[in-house]
Amino acid sequence: MADRNPQRREAELKSRLFPVIMAGGSGTRFWPVSRHLFPKQLLRIGSEDTLIRQTMRRVLGCAPASNVLISTNGPQAELIRIQLADWKDDLKDNYVLEPEGRNTAPAIALAAIEVLARNQHGLMLVVPADHVVTGQREFEMAVALATRLAEQDYLVTFGIKPIRPETGYGYIKPDEKTVLGRLGGLRGYRVRQFVEKPDAAKAARYLKAGSYYWNSGMFVWKAATILDEIRRHQPGLAKVVDQIQQLTATGAPASSVDEAYRGAASISIDTGVMERSSRAAMVPVSFRWSDVGSWGSLDEVAVKNKAGNILTGRVVDLDCNDSIVYADRRVVATIGLKDMVVVDTPDATLVCPKHRAQDVKKVVEILKRQGAPEHLEHVTVQRPWGSYTVLEEGPGFKVKRVTVNPGGRLSLQLHHKRSEHWVVIAGRARVTRGEEVFELGVGQSTAIPVETPHRLENPGQETLHIIEVQNGPYLGEDDIVRFKDDYGRK
Amino acid sequence: MADRNPQRREAELKSRLFPVIMAGGSGTRFWPVSRHLFPKQLLRIGSEDTLIRQTMRRVLGCAPASNVLISTNGPQAELIRIQLADWKDDLKDNYVLEPEGRNTAPAIALAAIEVLARNQHGLMLVVPADHVVTGQREFEMAVALATRLAEQDYLVTFGIKPIRPETGYGYIKPDEKTVLGRLGGLRGYRVRQFVEKPDAAKAARYLKAGSYYWNSGMFVWKAATILDEIRRHQPGLAKVVDQIQQLTATGAPASSVDEAYRGAASISIDTGVMERSSRAAMVPVSFRWSDVGSWGSLDEVAVKNKAGNILTGRVVDLDCNDSIVYADRRVVATIGLKDMVVVDTPDATLVCPKHRAQDVKKVVEILKRQGAPEHLEHVTVQRPWGSYTVLEEGPGFKVKRVTVNPGGRLSLQLHHKRSEHWVVIAGRARVTRGEEVFELGVGQSTAIPVETPHRLENPGQETLHIIEVQNGPYLGEDDIVRFKDDYGRK
Repeated sequence: MADRNPQRREAELKSRLFPVIMAGGSGTRFWPVSRHLFPKQLLRIGSEDTLIRQTMRRVLGCAPASNVLISTNGPQAELIRIQLADWKDDLKDNYVLEPEGRNTAPAIALAAIEVLARNQHGLMLVVPADHVVTGQREFEMAVALATRLAEQDYLVTFGIKPIRPETGYGYIKPDEKTVLGRLGGLRGYRVRQFVEKPDAAKAARYLKAGSYYWNSGMFVWKAATILDEIRRHQPGLAKVVDQIQQLTATGAPASSVDEAYRGAASISIDTGVMERSSRAAMVPVSFRWSDVGSWGSLDEVAVKNKAGNILTGRVVDLDCNDSIVYADRRVVATIGLKDMVVVDTPDATLVCPKHRAQDVKKVVEILKRQGAPEHLEHVTVQRPWGSYTVLEEGPGFKVKRVTVNPGGRLSLQLHHKRSEHWVVIAGRARVTRGEEVFELGVGQSTAIPVETPHRLENPGQETLHIIEVQNGPYLGEDDIVRFKDDYGRK
Repeated sequence: MADRNPQRREAELKSRLFPVIMAGGSGTRFWPVSRHLFPKQLLRIGSEDTLIRQTMRRVLGCAPASNVLISTNGPQAELIRIQLADWKDDLKDNYVLEPEGRNTAPAIALAAIEVLARNQHGLMLVVPADHVVTGQREFEMAVALATRLAEQDYLVTFGIKPIRPETGYGYIKPDEKTVLGRLGGLRGYRVRQFVEKPDAAKAARYLKAGSYYWNSGMFVWKAATILDEIRRHQPGLAKVVDQIQQLTATGAPASSVDEAYRGAASISIDTGVMERSSRAAMVPVSFRWSDVGSWGSLDEVAVKNKAGNILTGRVVDLDCNDSIVYADRRVVATIGLKDMVVVDTPDATLVCPKHRAQDVKKVVEILKRQGAPEHLEHVTVQRPWGSYTVLEEGPGFKVKRVTVNPGGRLSLQLHHKRSEHWVVIAGRARVTRGEEVFELGVGQSTAIPVETPHRLENPGQETLHIIEVQNGPYLGEDDIVRFKDDYGRK
């Protein structure tokens, strides 16, 4: 029975609410700033902070940090752990890893199994890691109302009031006669109809009608309810869920859980469950929302100058209007542009009209087919101990700037195919080379021969920067044998 | 008296013809590919070869290499010597250096003084270093006819048949009734009228009339004639000429000649002499000509694909039309562009519509005012021994890739403020460090302490590449004390 004391009731609800941050995005739409291994959630959009950290902060208004689950995959998890290092103790065991991408329904099922294992009455707040929400109070209010409806076994979505005839989203029509609950000025309704992405004419009609809402891809429900509905509408996925629950209960190795998961078909939670369920409810929200689905959508969330431009970095602009120009460290000069997107990164540049920004995906496809590294990752790569930037590479050599955080150290490692030279350009380095351990200051250097175990460490208070020159017939990152690692890597 | 044997006569004329390559351009119009210290004449436009080498090859059809004079300034001369290394013995003493830019009239006067000192009957063929000419045979024929007219004391220009109502050029109207000479199908006329850059309506009228020609900025005359005409029409400049001739005759130091030159006013040969002279003649030419005055003008000289695009480098193009996209080593992705210019270099990018390409000059002005290095030179800088590329710089450090040609060596030098580390990544290095001399192979390294005399040399057959890491509080190129230099630098 529900507690009658509202504060205690709220605290109890919060303790049962498990935010699930969906962080498996592919990073093609904001290329060249996003990459396959640097997806959109790592970008700073609409804030000084990255989208995934904005998302983390947002859900902390609704639940304790230790309840937050991160649904992602192995390669991205390492990057996200760096991003969410402020909460690293709370989140240590909260990564729910998909062994392979299977769209949202299986990923949500996997998270629901985890929530259920932690709390039989657990509630889930599913949020994408890479959306922008403005209005924290309004967000928390909407979640509070959605939670009440979820307690009544509804699958609750959040409806966004359309502001343009968008053809890229699904729409929801609520049944405004059946009010399921109220809180503040908000109301929750049963869903009358889900509508797939409409054509332009339909989208215009929905906008005019005023009774259709955008599906924001955020949900609240009981873990038990969503699994029930999966059982009802997706028997194939239900079998996989049962398998995984049995394997987990009997303490089977992670690899067998992974194998079971790979048996699931790719399907989205929207088409797979929400559109079929009689338990769907919707809360029209009052916060501002954007899925920032393309460069053009920055218009919704970024600050513009008087000419309607969004300019970042070293831009020299003459007479541009309503354009987005992103410069990194290099100079970008733009003259007389109108409604254009120009994005400049250390290894790739994009130029297109705003209305073609969706086609960036096609460029990424082409680069992927060419095997071009520019689709995969940036020249600067984050690591738990700091980062490295490839300054130049060519036949038989690679030059990197390596940055090590105070107290950070790389693994004790060796390479079969390359020798390395290190020159300290800032800070202080402790170097292990074979049996020796010694320190280097600015302007000092050392050479690490092939097959020699070595380790680089920053014993100081200041960030360490070194220039590393690699020589050898093969210089791939995978030529590494790790003996010891502070970050659990093999 | 003229020789009656045509071949002997032609040989005699060639020996008296001094091509003067005007190579003092400012390098703003093709920014960011051109720079103040990397002007347009060093670009490869319309050919695999640079414009100045195309120009050199062109004039060699008219005169021996040892007659070719290069009119330029000190900083550019070093770059041009590298460009024209194939003719280095012939050109050794043929650089006529302006101590300060004074437009074309004083520069041409200085060249005329030099020609006169070499041959009292010397003829000059004045050509800009950075134009494109197609049709070598037609060019030589036009020069041959112009030379005949110059022998009769005419100042001869070459008239280009207009193909569009251009407002950026001066026009010439010949007096087609007074034929001064004929050769092959060509005729030479007296000039009836020079017209300054016209407005759009006038330019359209000239194009339609068919009796106006573009002034190509190329000339043929006797050195004595042009100095006479300068005396007649530019008494101020005439005084400077007299001063310089006296100083030269008495063997005065170069610095006093420079000082005299600085006293000249800036004036172009067109407005200062040609438009005032009664000796002006014009040969309408049959070769194709472009002054490639802006990115947009590439349309006249470069090969286009089926969609009308001129694409260079690693361009990923979706649906672009009639655009110019220049990529260097980085990927440039362009989607749905029309009539645009996109130019990407290692440290700067330009995006503008073709019809605004002239305004690149304004961008360069802004960068110059900001003191931004991107207006001045490239990250890769040519040197007589090879080149260097700045890969990265920051507080207290700079990383360069240094390339040394086989047999090349840098000066024996020292630095007061920086130490250097060298790692060989290709080829073989001979290193002088203090009293030691030793060799390094691939993967080997050495450190050069502050204040230590040192020298880098390529003793091998293969190009030497090293990575140089500089450390120190000041890393400017001017912290260098040269003891010995193979290239006469101080």
